[in-house]
Amino acid sequence: MGYGRTFALWRAAAGPAWDAYTRHPFVQGLADGSLPRAAFLHYLVQDYLFLVHFARAWALAVTKADTIGEMRICAATVHALIDGEMRLHIQTCAEAGLDEATLFAAEERAENLAYTRYVLDAGHAGDFLDLLAALAPCVLGYGEIGARLLREAGDTPYRGWIETYGGADYQQVCARVGALIDGAAVRRLGPDPAATPRWPAICRRFTTATRLESGFWDMGLRP
Amino acid sequence: MGYGRTFALWRAAAGPAWDAYTRHPFVQGLADGSLPRAAFLHYLVQDYLFLVHFARAWALAVTKADTIGEMRICAATVHALIDGEMRLHIQTCAEAGLDEATLFAAEERAENLAYTRYVLDAGHAGDFLDLLAALAPCVLGYGEIGARLLREAGDTPYRGWIETYGGADYQQVCARVGALIDGAAVRRLGPDPAATPRWPAICRRFTTATRLESGFWDMGLRP
Amino acid sequence: MGYGRTFALWRAAAGPAWDAYTRHPFVQGLADGSLPRAAFLHYLVQDYLFLVHFARAWALAVTKADTIGEMRICAATVHALIDGEMRLHIQTCAEAGLDEATLFAAEERAENLAYTRYVLDAGHAGDFLDLLAALAPCVLGYGEIGARLLREAGDTPYRGWIETYGGADYQQVCARVGALIDGAAVRRLGPDPAATPRWPAICRRFTTATRLESGFWDMGLRP
Amino acid sequence: MGYGRTFALWRAAAGPAWDAYTRHPFVQGLADGSLPRAAFLHYLVQDYLFLVHFARAWALAVTKADTIGEMRICAATVHALIDGEMRLHIQTCAEAGLDEATLFAAEERAENLAYTRYVLDAGHAGDFLDLLAALAPCVLGYGEIGARLLREAGDTPYRGWIETYGGADYQQVCARVGALIDGAAVRRLGPDPAATPRWPAICRRFTTATRLESGFWDMGLRP
Repeated sequence: MGYGRTFALWRAAAGPAWDAYTRHPFVQGLADGSLPRAAFLHYLVQDYLFLVHFARAWALAVTKADTIGEMRICAATVHALIDGEMRLHIQTCAEAGLDEATLFAAEERAENLAYTRYVLDAGHAGDFLDLLAALAPCVLGYGEIGARLLREAGDTPYRGWIETYGGADYQQVCARVGALIDGAAVRRLGPDPAATPRWPAICRRFTTATRLESGFWDMGLRP
Repeated sequence: MGYGRTFALWRAAAGPAWDAYTRHPFVQGLADGSLPRAAFLHYLVQDYLFLVHFARAWALAVTKADTIGEMRICAATVHALIDGEMRLHIQTCAEAGLDEATLFAAEERAENLAYTRYVLDAGHAGDFLDLLAALAPCVLGYGEIGARLLREAGDTPYRGWIETYGGADYQQVCARVGALIDGAAVRRLGPDPAATPRWPAICRRFTTATRLESGFWDMGLRP
Repeated sequence: MGYGRTFALWRAAAGPAWDAYTRHPFVQGLADGSLPRAAFLHYLVQDYLFLVHFARAWALAVTKADTIGEMRICAATVHALIDGEMRLHIQTCAEAGLDEATLFAAEERAENLAYTRYVLDAGHAGDFLDLLAALAPCVLGYGEIGARLLREAGDTPYRGWIETYGGADYQQVCARVGALIDGAAVRRLGPDPAATPRWPAICRRFTTATRLESGFWDMGLRP
Repeated sequence: MGYGRTFALWRAAAGPAWDAYTRHPFVQGLADGSLPRAAFLHYLVQDYLFLVHFARAWALAVTKADTIGEMRICAATVHALIDGEMRLHIQTCAEAGLDEATLFAAEERAENLAYTRYVLDAGHAGDFLDLLAALAPCVLGYGEIGARLLREAGDTPYRGWIETYGGADYQQVCARVGALIDGAAVRRLGPDPAATPRWPAICRRFTTATRLESGFWDMGLRP
């Protein structure tokens, strides 16, 4: 799967929670096309709101970076989210008759609030690395799901979604974020991060965010 | 009910969401004693974790106050939460064989994460008044519930809970917080807060936090 | 001068502090070429560090915006600072034998710390508008100085600096930021911001940041 | 001097900056009584404002603590600052005809802004330990100065100041904060903090705050 050494360790530490997220019934519904259109649109609207707050969390990371290189990658990610990824949602929703003002004004579901505000608080409560651990499951999990579905999925109306996250552009974002995480971990924890006292707490951040991703898919199935 | 003019406006703006919270089946179960003991203990453990993060939010308010008077009230509230209200939870849980380290290490349920992190983010995203609007439903709603149950409740094993929140000490906290909110609103919005452009957004903060309180009670019924 | 209605009011409220900043001896030294090269290089190194923290403050603004439009302008400004304005510093310093790692590791002078950390704290203590009031003197003051010097300055070795801030690109940034401020003020304070209770405190933010700009020029003259 | 193992390491890392702060001419003027009364009053007014923002920084620490024990100590320190230490300033200034509203409305000098906002930003940019490293020079340096002057100072009109910081109550605060720092360092960095990659950056936080303390004394001598 790639995405770096630290991600591999966090992913392993999350145990079955990782598969529960990346092989969730919602994901299967995208792959085989069985996901109802209404559920997908409902998910897109909530995911638009998610991205608003996720972009805020990456902007928070800019304020917590220790090197100019870290700052540049985080700022580029804010830009990619606001001007790239959100365009997909805006366009697809526009085709269904929902304009951006409607998306922005939609009511956030509790599962959505829980996830995004947890990530933001991970940043405010801790340092740059605590924040990255909470940001990683979404960025890299979508990359992993997209890459797998691009190989495995059959004929499905959700091919656009799959190509977005499985495609070269997004995979490059994932490679860059994976490298950012590896560098940030070494700079703060040294050559053997897993042997340091902060490691269990950092893994818990990753696992909690992973659980909240599953909750988001659950919500997606309940328009 | 008291607790000030601004609270009365926010409460009215929340509409049926307010009654859904303050007259929730969980509350009825406290009043008539029908709430299963396991649900109450489960709620207490989660509420202990809630208070940890709620105290963090009041500490955040200290950093966002505009006057020394606002600072003093918020700091006193942090103290009251950490050294007062949490003692009730610690003692009751200790009687059931759960020590404080166990409480602190318990896993937060998603409904709990959603609520506390939403309140903290209201503070980080906005100003002192935005934060107070998100803090108010818990503080003043518990005061309102406690006062009502003290008058209405019959014989119930949960009389200790009712006397905590209906009692003079907690009612005084509520009066002080209500006055804090009134002063903060006038200082920032002028004599007619409801006529200002920020008012609808501030009311939405209060209403969202109220909805998340109902979600917390729902979670309490599902140990 | 342009840059919007709110800026004009803030500028007037700052009184003589505004001229003390925009017509500081350092500025005159740029205009007539009398500024010693050592002072200019010293200033550039400190200004590089300033821009690191100023970009952090604009990233903080992304986390505090109320509309997607506000978010986009703030994110674009972070990008313009990190990938545009800082390039000028990096290039000029490189010509003088200082690479970017040296710039990033330079020791911040107290006048520099005072200014950038004050701006960041204005954001953490208040809301989006409080932060904009602290960000405005630098962005728009440099625009005003650049535009004036482009008209008035004679032959000077600092023409590159003058053309950067007086040039069309930077003037467009100023116009966009001025419009952002006007919109943000109306959305939060209504059609007559100067008549609202928060107005004096917001003007104080602007004036304090203006005073700290003068302190930065003072420091520039003392390599 | 005590105050723990980590403080001893930070103090040594600060090198001559530590003595420049703790044996500053302002301190000598307190010890031998040569400090002009006007300078002392000017310092007290600025120090009152300092304590407002220093209390905000300790409240920020409450929001960044990892254990309930850390939270309790930080909350108690906020309380001690707001309701204890600031009383000394209020009372002494009242005797000189300055009431608390005047103190709160005084204009902060740049040296004051630089220090307090740097400490707050250390907390926002980093984690709990980064914040403690920026908070330590003030708390523990005053303890060290007070204890030394209590032993060494002759007849001086500033005996009240000396007894405040050299006295048993304040020394106990210092012992508690020193133990808090030791525990926080071990919990995050392990048994040998000085061998970890974050150590140099944490020492720089302490040294920068120490330099800013000297700047504060300099300012005190220039009413």
